[in-house]
Amino acid sequence: MSTIIEKTNIGRYPILDVNPVFESGRFAAKAIENEVLPITAKIFGEGHDKIGATVVLQDPDGNVHAEYLMQQVGYDADKNWNCLVQVGKTLGLWHFYIEAWLDAYHTWEHHAKIKVPSNQDVELTLAQGSQIFSAWSKQKDVPTALKKVLAPIVSDLLNTSLSPEERLFRATASNIQEIALSHPFRQYISKSKKYPIAVDRRLSSFSAWYQFFPRSEGAKQKKDGTWISGTFTTASKRLQAVKNMGFDIIYMPPIHPIGTTFRKGANNTLHAKDHEPGSPWAVGSSEGGHDVIHPELGTIRTFKSFIKRANELDLEVSLDIALQCSPDHPWVKEHPNWFTHRPDGTIAYAENPPKKYQDIYPINFDNEPDQIVEEVLRILHFWIDLGVTVLRIDNPHTKPVWFWEVVIKRIKETNPEVIWLAEAFTNPIAMKTLGLIGYDQSHSYFLWRNNKYELTEFLGQINDYDAFWYRATLWPTTPDNLTDYLANGGTAAHAIRAVLAAMGSTTWGIYAGYELVENIQRQNPDGSHALEHVDSEKYQFKQRNWKDVSKYGISDFITTLNRIRNNHVSCQNMHNLQVHTTTNDNIIAFSRHISGSFTTDGKDDTLITIVNLDPHHAHQAMVYLDYGALNLPERYEAVDEVTGNYFELGRSIYVDLAPVISVAHIFHIKR
Amino acid sequence: MSTIIEKTNIGRYPILDVNPVFESGRFAAKAIENEVLPITAKIFGEGHDKIGATVVLQDPDGNVHAEYLMQQVGYDADKNWNCLVQVGKTLGLWHFYIEAWLDAYHTWEHHAKIKVPSNQDVELTLAQGSQIFSAWSKQKDVPTALKKVLAPIVSDLLNTSLSPEERLFRATASNIQEIALSHPFRQYISKSKKYPIAVDRRLSSFSAWYQFFPRSEGAKQKKDGTWISGTFTTASKRLQAVKNMGFDIIYMPPIHPIGTTFRKGANNTLHAKDHEPGSPWAVGSSEGGHDVIHPELGTIRTFKSFIKRANELDLEVSLDIALQCSPDHPWVKEHPNWFTHRPDGTIAYAENPPKKYQDIYPINFDNEPDQIVEEVLRILHFWIDLGVTVLRIDNPHTKPVWFWEVVIKRIKETNPEVIWLAEAFTNPIAMKTLGLIGYDQSHSYFLWRNNKYELTEFLGQINDYDAFWYRATLWPTTPDNLTDYLANGGTAAHAIRAVLAAMGSTTWGIYAGYELVENIQRQNPDGSHALEHVDSEKYQFKQRNWKDVSKYGISDFITTLNRIRNNHVSCQNMHNLQVHTTTNDNIIAFSRHISGSFTTDGKDDTLITIVNLDPHHAHQAMVYLDYGALNLPERYEAVDEVTGNYFELGRSIYVDLAPVISVAHIFHIKR
Repeated sequence: MSTIIEKTNIGRYPILDVNPVFESGRFAAKAIENEVLPITAKIFGEGHDKIGATVVLQDPDGNVHAEYLMQQVGYDADKNWNCLVQVGKTLGLWHFYIEAWLDAYHTWEHHAKIKVPSNQDVELTLAQGSQIFSAWSKQKDVPTALKKVLAPIVSDLLNTSLSPEERLFRATASNIQEIALSHPFRQYISKSKKYPIAVDRRLSSFSAWYQFFPRSEGAKQKKDGTWISGTFTTASKRLQAVKNMGFDIIYMPPIHPIGTTFRKGANNTLHAKDHEPGSPWAVGSSEGGHDVIHPELGTIRTFKSFIKRANELDLEVSLDIALQCSPDHPWVKEHPNWFTHRPDGTIAYAENPPKKYQDIYPINFDNEPDQIVEEVLRILHFWIDLGVTVLRIDNPHTKPVWFWEVVIKRIKETNPEVIWLAEAFTNPIAMKTLGLIGYDQSHSYFLWRNNKYELTEFLGQINDYDAFWYRATLWPTTPDNLTDYLANGGTAAHAIRAVLAAMGSTTWGIYAGYELVENIQRQNPDGSHALEHVDSEKYQFKQRNWKDVSKYGISDFITTLNRIRNNHVSCQNMHNLQVHTTTNDNIIAFSRHISGSFTTDGKDDTLITIVNLDPHHAHQAMVYLDYGALNLPERYEAVDEVTGNYFELGRSIYVDLAPVISVAHIFHIKR
Repeated sequence: MSTIIEKTNIGRYPILDVNPVFESGRFAAKAIENEVLPITAKIFGEGHDKIGATVVLQDPDGNVHAEYLMQQVGYDADKNWNCLVQVGKTLGLWHFYIEAWLDAYHTWEHHAKIKVPSNQDVELTLAQGSQIFSAWSKQKDVPTALKKVLAPIVSDLLNTSLSPEERLFRATASNIQEIALSHPFRQYISKSKKYPIAVDRRLSSFSAWYQFFPRSEGAKQKKDGTWISGTFTTASKRLQAVKNMGFDIIYMPPIHPIGTTFRKGANNTLHAKDHEPGSPWAVGSSEGGHDVIHPELGTIRTFKSFIKRANELDLEVSLDIALQCSPDHPWVKEHPNWFTHRPDGTIAYAENPPKKYQDIYPINFDNEPDQIVEEVLRILHFWIDLGVTVLRIDNPHTKPVWFWEVVIKRIKETNPEVIWLAEAFTNPIAMKTLGLIGYDQSHSYFLWRNNKYELTEFLGQINDYDAFWYRATLWPTTPDNLTDYLANGGTAAHAIRAVLAAMGSTTWGIYAGYELVENIQRQNPDGSHALEHVDSEKYQFKQRNWKDVSKYGISDFITTLNRIRNNHVSCQNMHNLQVHTTTNDNIIAFSRHISGSFTTDGKDDTLITIVNLDPHHAHQAMVYLDYGALNLPERYEAVDEVTGNYFELGRSIYVDLAPVISVAHIFHIKR
């Protein structure tokens, strides 16, 4: 193509609004190894000629990994093109760009199929086709075997001993159409900018989290009412059960010494009684800060043993990084400049007037930013060196975003395996921005999305383009959150929210006790219910009876959910969820689907999850599947992965789901 | 601010989704001299501190032209900020960027106004304020006079002989608030990227076009039925009347020799009779091509006289550039490579099978792109050198976009005064792209937007952010288009569409005969009506009786519309239109408003246009004004600029509009 064209900003064929792209590549889109990703753009040519478009995918070394033919979709006037691409196993910064080109073969085919039958310019039209086949059969990227298919058509089209219909047929037969798909005849190729995709290991997106307080595991109450804390050693006995349920990550609140000044007591009371252990998030005492283990939990040696045991079970260990200090934290004396000083020389505690949080000194990152970065990096490396591979960052949105950009980037340079979860419950743009600058996952509004309309919108959002920047991890409860839905809905509600979380995103998690249906809310002094657990572990020890958990809890159901997730590659993708129509507002249906062109066994992997959202009543519904995306025959066999039962199903499915007995179907389509 | 922060991608305070920005500045936003433009972004900080934001506007020399304080608007969680800015008179490439910063003063004010009255940390809080005033009163950009207002507050706040309330009052009084608006205390300033705004002369956006066929003006039919063509000399006699109606641009179809091969006859018949003049868009004959004047129209000398006369009247002259050739165009022989050759050696005519357009040879821009660019530039310079300053490009979307990017850029280098109108009726993204790469204006879907719902959506779209890339010119008819609405609605319909066009965009135009309410459609052979004029001037001469035009036409009304447009700066802005609620689906109301901060006389300029869209019946309605954007008192005086009548109006306006007598009010608010 001429330089004059290549030098223009717009190029031979305009390629605009390319996605996934944030501000022209300011931040990379996120993906995991082997993930299948949608690429879209607006592409058009002038006049009536047909054009084609290709996505070229480059691995981190800059080599072409694969090319994909795009399709124009929707209304022609919208000029929307899309296709699915699949990144490979190599981790690092991939790139993609789009090539748009003149599709002279299909332009000619369109003309010829009108003109030849209507006896208009017949020989001329066939001769034009011959010229196209001549150039096509010489095109560099066409393999020799295929060139041999194209070459004879050059003379066939000119062979007047054959009927025009026969010649047109040969030039448009299915073997030619196949070559037009795999090695299209491309002229005047124009390229888009190159856009980044950061490919990380699978766990960065596909993960099941289990949160627990190690001090509760093995804690014992003495006769005088005081407690002996659980330790890493006693807590490690719980790991086998966590693994048995199918979780990948064991996650603990901060494990550091806890401040005593303004320590909070049981049920968030303002002053702790003696022997009350305090909140692990009030980090730091005279015994040390963020790089020290709470003496009651154990030592570096027992912590390492804990990690070793977890890793033997194929569990990764996540620490909670809460960058705030109790007034007793060593930094307060060692680095007073890292806090805000008031005119009277005192250090400013956290406040949102008229509310005061005197047990917490927030760090002022503007005072000595370089030094704070270095100290935090030192601390993170300390734990990473001990075997921590997952960091759950407490309230990252209350610290400057630039700080996380620097810290994540620096850690990724030496430890790209580390996975970052933002515990951010804040405004949407702040949550998205934390994803843009490096967080792999973030907490989400899932807790407050309970009915069908809320969930339809929410599941659509988090599994769409947003997921390239912001991956939502779905947790039915946290130590800070116990919703009315769960408090009022009992076991069925817990099962329902577990299905939605496990199947609604690539990443979900539970907080210990969920499998026991612990759902009693703390009462406020005014008699209303706080939206969190009574006798919260945040402020006290908690003994649980794990012995009979499978009898009266939902641990078996959770085990089933994690098994399904692990067995199905369609659960490992953030861009393949589709909500389907149901005739009952209490029943939601959604599918996850991966085409066989992207699976290792070559078979489509399709799961259809249908959930009764009402924890109190049975409901029936017709589910009408949107067949467009699912590649389904009229009738097909499916197995309900929850029960193991077989079904013969079709475009519409009748379901009858009752609380506790059967809150959900998860159909796997037999292929 | 520390380098470690400045080096990050995200900066101290995130600034995202800045508008008007296309693909991070890939193409510049469009504006005209002194235009008022909205700038928006998502901006946020961590925690509860208040932040502020400023837009900095730079002139083409890179000097700061002005700074504007942004406001946070809408739901807090959306983090949407906006403000209006005004570019200056200098034409060229302006830039803007956003600065976000800690607003320590308002953060403190918020705390102090809670804490002081509730007697919480009073002295400490006032002392914190003193520190802020101390730093603020030393801030570089604060003028000495204002520093003298701030400085005493430093000690006032510490002065225990004053009551805390008095001290807080002094620190938050209106004189301080004013400084906080004009010279805010700014800490930790973070900057966005710099984004381009191309500022062009007023006519590039604000223009009223008048299209006519010079061959019709002064054309005379002889006794034998044949015609003597009008000429530039006879046509120039029409210019005074066009100017009197208030138009800015006189625009002519192509003025070149017309092909004879396959020449179209009257009413688009396939074969012209002898003496039929043919379509001016079939450019080129043995007499010459795009750089030659049709001998029957005149000579270079008479063309120059025509332009001189137009310019004397302050009219600019627009030529129609139709880059296509009749089979008789000299290029066909001189540059056969510029066309597509068929295998039999013949040149391909235009076709969209099974339709053939044998009178037109399209140019193949891929064959010799550099040579075609040079030849087109030569031709354009030829006409520009003769005084043509406006180019109306025929069907630009059927030529490659890159071609226009190159040609417009090259012409702008030497002749930045030239204005470009795309006659593009095609898909939205192609129309927008032509704007992106340099077209000042484009035709639009206005022709097919007739009812209140269509118009509400359309006027909103074309006056919103889209207008930074794509400026829609509104024409009620063109030589190719006469809608049923106008064919059936008579004089009233013509008046209605004129008001909508003149007031609905900065740029509108009419095609000669509109003021005479020429609205008879051509009948198709099957009896249906073609959506264009009968006996179209495209294919034949047309004599019009201009003598009594003001008696039976709408030229006086059109004159009024152009007068209103010229008298009101609010009509010269593409971002200030707002549609208001009315109680009748036949009545639409919209306003244009410019704040007095941006006008030369310091007064708000506000027009409220209310139109009865039904050309057959009177309608009444209540119009409910959205006061938010209009800065109106409860009661105000207004003059109807159409009639000159005075009204006293309020938040809601009762209107009774009847066809012909009074199709519209255009209220100007007295300030």
